[in-house]
Amino acid sequence: MGPDAKRDLVSIDDLSCDEIMALFRRADDYREDLRAWSGVCPGSIMATLFFEPSTRTRLSFESAMLRLGGGVVTAADAQSTSQAKGESLADTVRVVGGSYADILVVRHPCDGAARVAARYASVPVINGGDGAHEHPTQTLCDLYTLWREKGELRGLDVVLCGDLRFSRTIHSFAYALARFGANIVTIPYPGFEMPPSVLDRLDSQFGVQAIAASVGDLPGIATAENSAAYLTASRPHQLALFTNLTEHHVERIDAIYMTRAQRERHAGQSTEGYPRISPELMRSDLMRDARVMHPLPRTDEIAYEVDADPRSIYFRQAELGVPIRMALMAFLLGAIEIDASRPTAFASDPGLRFAAGIGAQCRNVRCITNSEAVRYLPAEFRMVREDPPELACAYCGEAVRASLVGCLTSKRFHAHDSADARRIKPENRVYFESEQQARVEGFRGGADA
Amino acid sequence: MGPDAKRDLVSIDDLSCDEIMALFRRADDYREDLRAWSGVCPGSIMATLFFEPSTRTRLSFESAMLRLGGGVVTAADAQSTSQAKGESLADTVRVVGGSYADILVVRHPCDGAARVAARYASVPVINGGDGAHEHPTQTLCDLYTLWREKGELRGLDVVLCGDLRFSRTIHSFAYALARFGANIVTIPYPGFEMPPSVLDRLDSQFGVQAIAASVGDLPGIATAENSAAYLTASRPHQLALFTNLTEHHVERIDAIYMTRAQRERHAGQSTEGYPRISPELMRSDLMRDARVMHPLPRTDEIAYEVDADPRSIYFRQAELGVPIRMALMAFLLGAIEIDASRPTAFASDPGLRFAAGIGAQCRNVRCITNSEAVRYLPAEFRMVREDPPELACAYCGEAVRASLVGCLTSKRFHAHDSADARRIKPENRVYFESEQQARVEGFRGGADA
Amino acid sequence: MGPDAKRDLVSIDDLSCDEIMALFRRADDYREDLRAWSGVCPGSIMATLFFEPSTRTRLSFESAMLRLGGGVVTAADAQSTSQAKGESLADTVRVVGGSYADILVVRHPCDGAARVAARYASVPVINGGDGAHEHPTQTLCDLYTLWREKGELRGLDVVLCGDLRFSRTIHSFAYALARFGANIVTIPYPGFEMPPSVLDRLDSQFGVQAIAASVGDLPGIATAENSAAYLTASRPHQLALFTNLTEHHVERIDAIYMTRAQRERHAGQSTEGYPRISPELMRSDLMRDARVMHPLPRTDEIAYEVDADPRSIYFRQAELGVPIRMALMAFLLGAIEIDASRPTAFASDPGLRFAAGIGAQCRNVRCITNSEAVRYLPAEFRMVREDPPELACAYCGEAVRASLVGCLTSKRFHAHDSADARRIKPENRVYFESEQQARVEGFRGGADA
Repeated sequence: MGPDAKRDLVSIDDLSCDEIMALFRRADDYREDLRAWSGVCPGSIMATLFFEPSTRTRLSFESAMLRLGGGVVTAADAQSTSQAKGESLADTVRVVGGSYADILVVRHPCDGAARVAARYASVPVINGGDGAHEHPTQTLCDLYTLWREKGELRGLDVVLCGDLRFSRTIHSFAYALARFGANIVTIPYPGFEMPPSVLDRLDSQFGVQAIAASVGDLPGIATAENSAAYLTASRPHQLALFTNLTEHHVERIDAIYMTRAQRERHAGQSTEGYPRISPELMRSDLMRDARVMHPLPRTDEIAYEVDADPRSIYFRQAELGVPIRMALMAFLLGAIEIDASRPTAFASDPGLRFAAGIGAQCRNVRCITNSEAVRYLPAEFRMVREDPPELACAYCGEAVRASLVGCLTSKRFHAHDSADARRIKPENRVYFESEQQARVEGFRGGADA
Repeated sequence: MGPDAKRDLVSIDDLSCDEIMALFRRADDYREDLRAWSGVCPGSIMATLFFEPSTRTRLSFESAMLRLGGGVVTAADAQSTSQAKGESLADTVRVVGGSYADILVVRHPCDGAARVAARYASVPVINGGDGAHEHPTQTLCDLYTLWREKGELRGLDVVLCGDLRFSRTIHSFAYALARFGANIVTIPYPGFEMPPSVLDRLDSQFGVQAIAASVGDLPGIATAENSAAYLTASRPHQLALFTNLTEHHVERIDAIYMTRAQRERHAGQSTEGYPRISPELMRSDLMRDARVMHPLPRTDEIAYEVDADPRSIYFRQAELGVPIRMALMAFLLGAIEIDASRPTAFASDPGLRFAAGIGAQCRNVRCITNSEAVRYLPAEFRMVREDPPELACAYCGEAVRASLVGCLTSKRFHAHDSADARRIKPENRVYFESEQQARVEGFRGGADA
Repeated sequence: MGPDAKRDLVSIDDLSCDEIMALFRRADDYREDLRAWSGVCPGSIMATLFFEPSTRTRLSFESAMLRLGGGVVTAADAQSTSQAKGESLADTVRVVGGSYADILVVRHPCDGAARVAARYASVPVINGGDGAHEHPTQTLCDLYTLWREKGELRGLDVVLCGDLRFSRTIHSFAYALARFGANIVTIPYPGFEMPPSVLDRLDSQFGVQAIAASVGDLPGIATAENSAAYLTASRPHQLALFTNLTEHHVERIDAIYMTRAQRERHAGQSTEGYPRISPELMRSDLMRDARVMHPLPRTDEIAYEVDADPRSIYFRQAELGVPIRMALMAFLLGAIEIDASRPTAFASDPGLRFAAGIGAQCRNVRCITNSEAVRYLPAEFRMVREDPPELACAYCGEAVRASLVGCLTSKRFHAHDSADARRIKPENRVYFESEQQARVEGFRGGADA
């Protein structure tokens, strides 16, 4: 990817920590007087292509673009029109990103859809939420809010509370906190724990490990039934010494990030006893310096009486969504310069891609590559780890463990840890999950020469 | 409410007569060349939050804001998104009015919803129609149109015709006409008479009384079956002398305001014989100086042949909706100064509020306080009359007659007209509709000391 | 129609060839830097009134208006609101075109609806597609794309392929190609041939005649089953000599215009064996200079592998929709001057209208005059041909053959080719399809004097 290539925000990983901090500082300028920046992007047009509705996210983006002096065209219910006529996502973004708009915001029910949009559109694409995958501008906004409140991110102790299983917001926020060196305390609603795949990635990407945690008096939040965990990479020596021996005792909290039960994702299940932030909780000593955050909309998990507490910052959090999106769009449109180093490895860097013949498809049924509408899209994977080989779908990130390595020239496959496998040159390597898969692709087992 | 507090337009009562006239004059400037005012509100953003659809009203507001040089973000079907996730109206307006928009236009199916929005949003709120309650910008537009046509409002004789029962437009217009000293002739479709509550308010607030009226030749409008009434406060002496003795004879008409049968509000009922404005009616001598008005959309109650008549001003009426909304929004956004005295008593003035413990809820089932989504909202009432005590829901205006007065310190209640009741200090008074209600709240009957 | 009358674009015939070429040149200026023209229409507002959804068309118009510096108000689903309250199209456009907007774009499911809108609105109306009738801005865009690619239109050989029966896009494009002197090769999917009415109009209006054609090697397109035809007016001598004797041999192709099967218009029918543009086709010698066009959205009729071929211009075609719509709107709004002669006969010229008493209604069931919502609209026809009399619905263009001519003064009717008929003065002539129709209107058969 050349220096002048367009930039997208599909994953929060598409921005370096340096860039994120630079965007925060720019957003600080913007928020002082939101009406003063109409000279930043005059003549630019943003299109919101929402294949599932989200009024809040849409309005936040549209407001940001208008405040930059640009124009907005909106397909708030794109699902019901182009797709009804059988059009592919790739075609839609090529048309809308052709001359209609200079930047696209795409929201889609399929995991990985934003990556497809970014790949086919000739203009920058921002992921406004793709299935259960990512929602990076929410994460940017969450980080920005926390940074503004606390002055830094490194070393903060942040509680993630409630439904930690289905909330993409929580997952993205956790990765971002880890990246910036914050510690995480998980207090899930029983049955809605952080998924192992998220813990795995926190470990493999940021060296974060989880230890049991005990939290003191947090009425309505920490109960006997739910088990807290402490996720941190910041004190490796202690962890190395004490993991499994002891548990971390949480003595104070910098922020508590509450999420609603995603009822639309687990219809029918009762959420009785769901954690709730009440005036009583706010009086807890542990909460003295804590900020209460929430991505909104809330249902009942934060009492209305807490709204007036100065530590309740969820409405401020929503408010900061506009200036941070202004900074992001001005950056992606090239309207402002950001003096910051780029991410060392773009998730979207073609150099990291590996179009392996490892079987036809990603195994995530919600992945865009498995959507009927995307019949043009080849399966494509990134290498995550070499030994044992672990690949990730280039679109939705779903992991695939491939224990066999094939050679494109000899058409033979071997166990990944065999001497034969190690001799295959990188450019000739392909990966398979099973012998059967390898044979279907025309490879034979056994030695090379 | 301090001089710098934000101003809302929830009810037409939120503007003084002086202010309304000043807005008319400003609108006159705007309408001369609608394209010349883009410098009035540059950088400002209006959000339209429509919890029930109304394309006409929405487009009128959006056009007005664009013509002022501002931007627009639109949730044309807000019902289906935030609310589907269980969000309260208060939260929605706090988020959208936080940084997304500088002024909100809210349309909602529940009576009183706009007052809730105004209360929670930090930016000005305009009521774009809340249930059967109010639609003040329609009334502003109606008054403005009539004023432009006739040069004044005081003393005009205005016929209100058709469905006078379910049309909030008619009710709001009637209050406004009375306030400006115009007289009203009601010619309802039988069964769709002006409700007693509206007549009551016209009487109590403006001293307007109704007497029987006879109207001459108005073919298609005034029939043997429907009984006209003359509502006026302008000739109190005559009325005092002759009410119930004679009836007012209508000799000429300044305007006839026609409404469609609100079929969506009384589905299934036939509207055969509904009044209709025809070319024949227009030839009536009574109609010589009359203007024909209609809030639109019409169905069949005005013949298409009448459109070309110069006295037909319903399309002009729609046209004037844009400049008057421009004037209103420029005023509420603080972009223009209006040299006019404020209303003496804001409907929204907290000083007039009375959060009485008079039972749990307003009795209007369509009131926002009875909506499940607004579980955070306490019942709240304004004192309308002291003796006998009459309260009005602070949101929808529904009247409550409370014959018992309690004392907060002694926890005893008394008949409102007893000596005991009169001795209770104003700050200690609470009102009850029944003994049972009082006892439930922990009050005992009987003497104090 | 006076020189200062407003101009509409209901049919591509509303623009002269000169004007179209002038718009192309203006669009060329615009497309060089789409962001540089916000000074062209500041303060102007476009309203999109879409009575059936079409996100692509809507966004293209909205983007064009924003890029001209104007504002946009949108009723993306106008069907569900005003019409639900029983409002007529005429009333809707009078209100929205009154002060809300300075130009209207109307899309409607009924044939001829755009003509109704143009007639009642006081501002310019652009047809964004009315039923199966016309979609003139798509045609403008198609012509502009072809002209840019080939430098001219006269004499080009253009293949129309696929569903030539239900595609209004194809029909409008065919008329426009004929008007500019291009030749057409039709290669329909069997059963989806060009309708006789279209061939008739090509003949009567442009002198275009169809002869059988043979096409060489076009794999996937030209098969044994489907019969190609060559439609041309450019070589009249040859045609006069050889029609029915021989067939035209297609040796090269300048463009192939592909359409999808309009599944929404013929639900249930299989489209197996539908023509498909594949990489193999692109290698055909005949295709050497050909451009591949498509109005989009495509489904499967163009292989994704063809996208990268430089001769594939369908995405460019969509891209050029914005600058050509910019030029059109700037022209209709009077923001730019076009130095070009007007069409000699406006389709909308009232002088060409003939409000004949030929029976109550147009026979096209999808015609707007037969829609219940348009009860105010009289049947109205234009004279297409005198002998034998052929009329066309002034709204949808549907032909009516009327063999009887009546006289308004004598109230008698005669066969159109009788001496009696010829004696009737033009201003007294009315036309009937049958004796019965004439008698119903009170005419008697037989001699006059």
